[in-house]
Amino acid sequence: MEILKQRILKDGKGIGTSILKVDTFLNHQIDIDLMEQLGQEFYQHFKDKHVTKVLTIEASGIAIAAFVAKAFNVPLVFAKKVVSKNLEGEILTASVQSYTKGLIYLINVSKKFVTEQDNILIIDDFLANGSALLGLADIVKQGGANLVGAGIAIEKSFQPGRKRAEEMGIEVYSLACVASINDSDIKFKEY
Amino acid sequence: MEILKQRILKDGKGIGTSILKVDTFLNHQIDIDLMEQLGQEFYQHFKDKHVTKVLTIEASGIAIAAFVAKAFNVPLVFAKKVVSKNLEGEILTASVQSYTKGLIYLINVSKKFVTEQDNILIIDDFLANGSALLGLADIVKQGGANLVGAGIAIEKSFQPGRKRAEEMGIEVYSLACVASINDSDIKFKEY
Repeated sequence: MEILKQRILKDGKGIGTSILKVDTFLNHQIDIDLMEQLGQEFYQHFKDKHVTKVLTIEASGIAIAAFVAKAFNVPLVFAKKVVSKNLEGEILTASVQSYTKGLIYLINVSKKFVTEQDNILIIDDFLANGSALLGLADIVKQGGANLVGAGIAIEKSFQPGRKRAEEMGIEVYSLACVASINDSDIKFKEY
Repeated sequence: MEILKQRILKDGKGIGTSILKVDTFLNHQIDIDLMEQLGQEFYQHFKDKHVTKVLTIEASGIAIAAFVAKAFNVPLVFAKKVVSKNLEGEILTASVQSYTKGLIYLINVSKKFVTEQDNILIIDDFLANGSALLGLADIVKQGGANLVGAGIAIEKSFQPGRKRAEEMGIEVYSLACVASINDSDIKFKEY
């Protein structure tokens, strides 16, 4: 998606060879117009798949996923990283490793929101090692729902997330695939 | 806001005298149409205040706040509960106590997103003890920005959040003020 790639080149900041900071428009401060455009782009790609729900993970996936859900006119469900007193009933759980935060955590979704009637589209802001995506896909499977695919804003194509997801049979559609980061030198690739 | 109150009565679930579960439409599964309506309602109330940014806290405030930001055509900023490797530079921090999760945590916002030029509207899904709201207000103050007010979807008026916020001079505008919860018997009040 050209507009996203141009924005990454303009406002993103590469640090070393693996970190891409996009905190001015994607995952700390959020450009809402851009989120709407991303939502439309994912809709165009997955519109024939009879999506019934959009699933993401707190927190930085929520804003994008909200506009994807708006485009499809379906509910958004976000997986929670902490079990609060407000989560009750049967809960679907998967473990996720965060490399940027240096920890492993459980993600949780109420069973009632992932059913055998659902065609679920997973949305997230980043795909790197794929741990969050595989955890969400596992929750979809546990709930007996159909996984339509995964829509990713920024894929770090030099990390194994896409490969791991595709090995699980998950269709990955990424709007910007980063081939390499070398401080301010950010290169993209196409699939 | 009548539509929100009716939705709480229809789909909310009171547990004991303090917990109100709204996980089917507000803070786990999210009704996007409703979020847009909430966004419009907050816009109507605060539209003359020259809002330059909407500030919320991860995670359940993000979807509402995204549609408020859309209505104002301004960026959304969300405070982070964990300092990740992607947060760098000067960071504004406040401590917040979560009663539902039984823990105290730090919330963090990059200084560059809260400036003396900003008129900031805080948005959150719930106001109970007011700890999150006061933490966000403290961050606005640390950044030298002007705090326009706080827009809350559901206020638990039997808890001290509103009083604590008003004592700090914060205007609180809540769309549904819950006067009492007694299992399924949920009563509202007006200010």
